[in-house]
Amino acid sequence: MSETFAVGLLGHGTVGSAFRELVEGRAEQIERTTGLRPEISGVLTRSRGDFEDILARSDLIAELMGGIEPAREYVLRAMEAGKHVVTANKQLLSQHGEELYEAARTHGVQLRFEASVAGVVPAIRVIHETLAGAHVERVHGIVNGTTNFILTEMTRTGASYGDALAEAQRLGYAEADPSEDVNGKDAAAKMTILARLAFDVPVRLDDVPYEGIENITSEDIEYAKEFGLSLKLIGSAERIGEGISVQVYPAFLYEGHPLASVNGSFNAVTIESPAITEITLSGPGAGGSQTASAVLGDVVSAMIPPTSLPAPAQPLPVVADRESAFYIHLEVADRPGVLAQVAEVLGLQGVSIRSVVQKGLGEDARLSMVMHPVLESKFRAAVKLIGGLDFVRSKPRALHVVDEEFAE
Amino acid sequence: MSETFAVGLLGHGTVGSAFRELVEGRAEQIERTTGLRPEISGVLTRSRGDFEDILARSDLIAELMGGIEPAREYVLRAMEAGKHVVTANKQLLSQHGEELYEAARTHGVQLRFEASVAGVVPAIRVIHETLAGAHVERVHGIVNGTTNFILTEMTRTGASYGDALAEAQRLGYAEADPSEDVNGKDAAAKMTILARLAFDVPVRLDDVPYEGIENITSEDIEYAKEFGLSLKLIGSAERIGEGISVQVYPAFLYEGHPLASVNGSFNAVTIESPAITEITLSGPGAGGSQTASAVLGDVVSAMIPPTSLPAPAQPLPVVADRESAFYIHLEVADRPGVLAQVAEVLGLQGVSIRSVVQKGLGEDARLSMVMHPVLESKFRAAVKLIGGLDFVRSKPRALHVVDEEFAE
Repeated sequence: MSETFAVGLLGHGTVGSAFRELVEGRAEQIERTTGLRPEISGVLTRSRGDFEDILARSDLIAELMGGIEPAREYVLRAMEAGKHVVTANKQLLSQHGEELYEAARTHGVQLRFEASVAGVVPAIRVIHETLAGAHVERVHGIVNGTTNFILTEMTRTGASYGDALAEAQRLGYAEADPSEDVNGKDAAAKMTILARLAFDVPVRLDDVPYEGIENITSEDIEYAKEFGLSLKLIGSAERIGEGISVQVYPAFLYEGHPLASVNGSFNAVTIESPAITEITLSGPGAGGSQTASAVLGDVVSAMIPPTSLPAPAQPLPVVADRESAFYIHLEVADRPGVLAQVAEVLGLQGVSIRSVVQKGLGEDARLSMVMHPVLESKFRAAVKLIGGLDFVRSKPRALHVVDEEFAE
Repeated sequence: MSETFAVGLLGHGTVGSAFRELVEGRAEQIERTTGLRPEISGVLTRSRGDFEDILARSDLIAELMGGIEPAREYVLRAMEAGKHVVTANKQLLSQHGEELYEAARTHGVQLRFEASVAGVVPAIRVIHETLAGAHVERVHGIVNGTTNFILTEMTRTGASYGDALAEAQRLGYAEADPSEDVNGKDAAAKMTILARLAFDVPVRLDDVPYEGIENITSEDIEYAKEFGLSLKLIGSAERIGEGISVQVYPAFLYEGHPLASVNGSFNAVTIESPAITEITLSGPGAGGSQTASAVLGDVVSAMIPPTSLPAPAQPLPVVADRESAFYIHLEVADRPGVLAQVAEVLGLQGVSIRSVVQKGLGEDARLSMVMHPVLESKFRAAVKLIGGLDFVRSKPRALHVVDEEFAE
């Protein structure tokens, strides 16, 4: 029988139940990596479970209940009992962080909290571990998905703040009472946590001035487009002389800024340090399964300090012929029927055209096309046939296109 | 006297010497975090130092010499001796990875290699730790800075491949012999390492077909702009049915793809998994101090499994009034001298205008301006004065602008 690693789960809402499911689904893989099989040793909800009983049967407590009390009491009690803690609770950390960090040091246990800021975007781990040896000068973040969704909608459709908020609520990106999201307080709590990590100094939520997006108009956004600017709710934490500044405010970004292209409900964090210039991390900021993934990553890290890679699984077969979208460019004689013949050859090989541009150049024309995804062998066969058509003036140019499967 | 953590340094080129400097500069901060003071216990170069002697005096070996032998022999010997190893050697890992990972497991030591792929962009740590519990479906990467710089130049200026390569060489982004960068082999080695991590299966460099950018023309890039496409050298590693595919090829990306806006010598990696949709990580891919930072992050992780945050330093003063760039929008009467008066008020407060757009609207006009960075108090004072001018028709709209300090 394999050895288990017992995880006590506090809270069984969206994140808690997604986490439980993920642990069950990934237990085998995690056992292969760590030598231990994670198991949920008990679940505490408002109506069932006994905290002390669950604690006694757990190696680690995953606190996913939210709020200050009793979460604070349970987390402190778990660390006193020598158990590691993983939490997604930004409220708790931004208000009682020092007390909790100190308890972890005192009792020699791990306290991990990746999921408390920007969901699965690994801002905490990167500042705390990758950049452990770096001097961080500044952190800029889009750390609230609700407001980023609203601002993206206002930019994209010209909608008013009120209409974009209603749309966000309809799609589940904003809560029925969105006030702490739209007024910037949620982002301020997250920036408090990041600033503590980046600068190794205590930061109180009360020291973080915040301003939200409630008063932004679609005209603000529209007029600023003339300067190539786009509007985001930005959390900033930076060293200024011998002090620090931590703030949240709506701000315009120039095109090309790494945060300017972060749209929809995505979150992103840019970390600047003289030695590295900057790193940008982006991804989905919230959602049950994303947050649960971040929690599970923390749990696995607490299970075993990663020494090396696990022994590999059996090699998987290498797939030589794979589907891809393609671009093709042809120099052709400019005469009737050319496009039709090219399209026919493609069609016979099962290659489907997505878009075409044809430009006449006197006697010749150039023909550029993007294909829908197709097996590479079929596309190459078609290109070979097209290269042999009598009206084709030079060797066809063919290149891959990465298909748009990514989320927005 | 404080306890030390002895780091033996193999190699003292660009990265090795940057690493040594960084260790010395950051020793105090790291001691505060870990309780141990990192010290370079010895340096091995071609002409000086004795490996066995350095090994005997080290807790960890940082292998920054590159190449296969004697790096492989030294790394294996260090792990046999029970020492942790941190390496930046992509060649070694892509060709002898399994032997090294097994040695680390056998001897119970840590083998860390963040710097071997994409410099300080934390692709290794995020796949290995943050996503330890996730099922990774696909990794897409821009993992070669030289080729990304060349393609960015060709796109930006219309330069030929040859001219852009020469420019890259002049600026130090390409080596005198750039062949393994431009032909895709360097990227293939890195994708081998990422694929091993993402899929937990051994991947041989020989199984990775690669294609470079030597035959790309500026016309390829120009014509594809008509479809909103931009060209990148993409490494892809993905699951396909029961198999995997790992490849490197030039590919077009649609605008909005997270890798489409990664320009210049930057690297970026997008990791897709059903539970999280996707995470994108980007930053400088190479350079001595960036790579050295990644090595140091690994060293700190090997020194001590991170339990919690260190005790905080003394709080830093909170800076209330900070410099920022600003945007202002005014509705004004459309008459002579309006812009001059606004500019005068700004000038008296020391606020300098960066760009202006003025649009007439019959009797009124709207005036939008972006300012250079200035102390917020001065800007707010100017806005108050401007709001009181008799030709101003409504309350001025003022918003932050994030200044373009980021690298390209």
